[in-house]
Amino acid sequence: MSASSQTPIDEPPSADDDSSKAVSKKAAKKEAAKQEKLRRRQEAAAESAISSLNVEDDPLSANYGDVPLSDLQSKEVKSIENWTQVGSLTPELKDKYVILRGRVQTIRAVGKKMAFLVVREKGFTVQCVLSEQPELVSRQMVKYVDGLSRESIVDVEGVVSVPNVAIKGASQQVEIQVRKVYCISKAMPTLPINIEDAARSEAEIDKALQAGEQLVRVNQDTRLNYRVLDMRTPANQGIFRIQCQVSTMFRQFLLDENFVEIHTPKLIGGSSEGGASVFRLDYKGQPACLAQSPQLHKQMAICGDFGRVFEIGPVFRAEDSYTHRHLCEFTGLDVEMEIKTHYSEVMDIVDRLFVAMFDSLNEKCKKALEAVDKQYPFEPLKYLRKTLRLTFEEGIQMLKDAGVEIDPLGDLNTEAERKLGQLVLEKYGTEFYILHRYPLAVRPFYTMPCYDNPTYSNSFDVFIRGEEIISGAQRVHVPEFLAERAQACGIDVKTIETYIDSFRYGAPPHGGFGVGLERVVMLFCGLNNIRKTSLFPRDPQRIAP
Amino acid sequence: MSASSQTPIDEPPSADDDSSKAVSKKAAKKEAAKQEKLRRRQEAAAESAISSLNVEDDPLSANYGDVPLSDLQSKEVKSIENWTQVGSLTPELKDKYVILRGRVQTIRAVGKKMAFLVVREKGFTVQCVLSEQPELVSRQMVKYVDGLSRESIVDVEGVVSVPNVAIKGASQQVEIQVRKVYCISKAMPTLPINIEDAARSEAEIDKALQAGEQLVRVNQDTRLNYRVLDMRTPANQGIFRIQCQVSTMFRQFLLDENFVEIHTPKLIGGSSEGGASVFRLDYKGQPACLAQSPQLHKQMAICGDFGRVFEIGPVFRAEDSYTHRHLCEFTGLDVEMEIKTHYSEVMDIVDRLFVAMFDSLNEKCKKALEAVDKQYPFEPLKYLRKTLRLTFEEGIQMLKDAGVEIDPLGDLNTEAERKLGQLVLEKYGTEFYILHRYPLAVRPFYTMPCYDNPTYSNSFDVFIRGEEIISGAQRVHVPEFLAERAQACGIDVKTIETYIDSFRYGAPPHGGFGVGLERVVMLFCGLNNIRKTSLFPRDPQRIAP
Repeated sequence: MSASSQTPIDEPPSADDDSSKAVSKKAAKKEAAKQEKLRRRQEAAAESAISSLNVEDDPLSANYGDVPLSDLQSKEVKSIENWTQVGSLTPELKDKYVILRGRVQTIRAVGKKMAFLVVREKGFTVQCVLSEQPELVSRQMVKYVDGLSRESIVDVEGVVSVPNVAIKGASQQVEIQVRKVYCISKAMPTLPINIEDAARSEAEIDKALQAGEQLVRVNQDTRLNYRVLDMRTPANQGIFRIQCQVSTMFRQFLLDENFVEIHTPKLIGGSSEGGASVFRLDYKGQPACLAQSPQLHKQMAICGDFGRVFEIGPVFRAEDSYTHRHLCEFTGLDVEMEIKTHYSEVMDIVDRLFVAMFDSLNEKCKKALEAVDKQYPFEPLKYLRKTLRLTFEEGIQMLKDAGVEIDPLGDLNTEAERKLGQLVLEKYGTEFYILHRYPLAVRPFYTMPCYDNPTYSNSFDVFIRGEEIISGAQRVHVPEFLAERAQACGIDVKTIETYIDSFRYGAPPHGGFGVGLERVVMLFCGLNNIRKTSLFPRDPQRIAP
Repeated sequence: MSASSQTPIDEPPSADDDSSKAVSKKAAKKEAAKQEKLRRRQEAAAESAISSLNVEDDPLSANYGDVPLSDLQSKEVKSIENWTQVGSLTPELKDKYVILRGRVQTIRAVGKKMAFLVVREKGFTVQCVLSEQPELVSRQMVKYVDGLSRESIVDVEGVVSVPNVAIKGASQQVEIQVRKVYCISKAMPTLPINIEDAARSEAEIDKALQAGEQLVRVNQDTRLNYRVLDMRTPANQGIFRIQCQVSTMFRQFLLDENFVEIHTPKLIGGSSEGGASVFRLDYKGQPACLAQSPQLHKQMAICGDFGRVFEIGPVFRAEDSYTHRHLCEFTGLDVEMEIKTHYSEVMDIVDRLFVAMFDSLNEKCKKALEAVDKQYPFEPLKYLRKTLRLTFEEGIQMLKDAGVEIDPLGDLNTEAERKLGQLVLEKYGTEFYILHRYPLAVRPFYTMPCYDNPTYSNSFDVFIRGEEIISGAQRVHVPEFLAERAQACGIDVKTIETYIDSFRYGAPPHGGFGVGLERVVMLFCGLNNIRKTSLFPRDPQRIAP
């Protein structure tokens, strides 16, 4: 790749002296000092001027510099196989000539003849060494590199070397002896947040504070305002790779079990599942809203004979929740399936799916989990090979036995969920379990009551570390009964008529569940806020960036 | 599974006779006929009454009947391995006792002692035979089955037999000698549309018309109004399984190429990418809109160092388009990636991804494609092992050479696209090709102009059967230039400030593309309307069901 030579802009020498003044002894001394200062300045200016000229005169000037835009506008098709990824730099490549593209993470100049440049690509870093050598590296080239701004994108070419001592400041245990370096994209000199500040753990900040040093702590809002920078931390690179693995496993497991992936509409006529927490909009003159879940349509796909379906897509909740675990828009992982005799068939899928998912995360996302753990330390999730199932009544009893006052037919609040999580962990040694047979009154209208006691329902929630991640149930598949239940729950049956009608054409018994993707990642990694696991979170106060 | 016995409701015998009338000879004959008629009626009534009583007296009454709701409310956990899928019924299962669940597709009674019941499950059908036999099948049981409404869900138990002649009316070449049959869910007696009407091809309708028979043709709107029924046709079962395979291949290919799956927000502050075709809404007092594509956020994920990302999610367009290929909500398959030197790197991904996808569709979706072809006949897609790439200028030249008048710097209209598709097919033997280097003026503001001629751009469209399915390009990664381009395209730069700022922190050259999932399925299968490939389509006039 050709590159234009670079002309550093140096400050012109100061010219605020006047040598034609009258001279006294004292003044003479002052003048001498002034002259000396001027001389030094002129010398520096001269050196600077020479060095500035030298870039153009430098016979090596083609080996470094800023790449002009025109060279980045797809001028030439080249094989991308020439490039080596930073993460794949190993001692086996010793003496090989490589080309890298990455970001300037840090630069450390040692005098004028040497500089260390750490280049980062996708969380991996390598130390690149510039050392003045005739016909290879000029002093101007060292200076050019020293002047690069952090987070700029550079192409580095050089020879892989393996130092005798371990390299502390980079992930890869090789160095690059730089031969060429070009800047592809310049970052602004002062960034709103520094990556190393954003990547710092609370423990590091505390430790420094004890040693009398105040390090920068980047707060959540600032991170989210400059999410593009925040994303570059090793922990965030890890979090979103873990998130990707969660949905990959979800999908792969279900496809292997003969589920069909569907896409249901997010724009809904009428009022979705009812309730206040719905975003309303005008749809070509008709009142419409955003789907609060794919609930109604995924059930309709079951009535349409797809047998077993799943969907991964956005879910919209206009709730005024300012908690650590609610978002106005999140990614729903939804499942719906015919059942033959019992809602335990649905819980069986949950059980096997999530055990397989956790196993795969621990196996395939080791580096990502380490990166998260480094900034946000957490204990690996404890889960059983066969997931524990407790009835709601059993859960209530455990809480009562532990002295917790609780309504046996009410929903569990956050505190009770946490407490029960603790009790379950102590008694059964798991942080992942299913609680089923919830009171009917706390479940949505389409939930099937229990055959033996209509106070309870064929429903379940699933918990990780004492917080709910999944809600599921058998659904009412009898249209008359469904309409009756909707009415009993205060829903205007007219707004969901096509949904209820779907069951008049013959409907198999069925059930399903919904999972919050961001919650799974948050709780698997023991993170304290769901905003950490949403790329661009939306809450009642945030709709940007 | 236990089942309640059923009491058929028979009409009471007519009682409009009066035998106390005066009798003449003529009247005597008339009276005799009347008496005979009455006698027959009474006999029939008696038989009917007996048969109606007999259900309760029938020693076999536990072997058939409607299952009460309480038995379907997860009364008992049973192994689902007992069930056999209709699609897996083969002659190897001869003499085996099987349990099936499926829909009543057709019932044909032969006298009072025999009935043929065709049961359908996920598009597969099997003929079930009820034949009166002592201690096995009662006449009442035959009658019960004859009274079932079409599309009701039934559990059938029986023995697999293999007839000597081919079975015409069902997909599986075995019969079930029924021993038990229970109705799980009753469909209403008269359905808004019949599945066999909805499944009929135009050719069948035309053929019948030539023979003087007028068959029902279900029009598009009726289908969509009763989508849950329409979904059950073999063609639709096929279409949505093909759709699932398209997104599965898309994802699998990209994951194997080190892409990361992301989820970007659909709720956007400001005005998304600008333009009129945006759904606006109120977001907690702030003006917001629905994302017209993940364009801005997927680019921001590239600025955030994910290197290569993809997303599958809904895309919202408030366009007043009433064409066969536009929807107000569709599923976008989006890709964005760093490029080293040239946007051809993006086209390489398109090329390999889609060839692999088409191969896998032809290989893995044979039955689904056959089902679609049966109702909507089409020729398999012609595509090359290495996808053809033409420049826009070459395309224009081909059109000109064919006598088409065309603006060399305007966009191609639908007609020109079709014509070019024909010309390309004739010349190169492919219905899938890439057209690149589009005029800059017809592309979005974030498109990178060509290095050698700013009238053109580093962009491309991809066509199947003469219709566009993909748009892609290298993007402008220089913030100042990006702002300048936005302004030149009439976009208020303030509304996209965070997006433009993302490039100030150092941004790698990158490019990407967006695909419409529904269009890919529509055009791969040669379908004539995009509403056929959306489960619940949304157009300017339709927001239900």
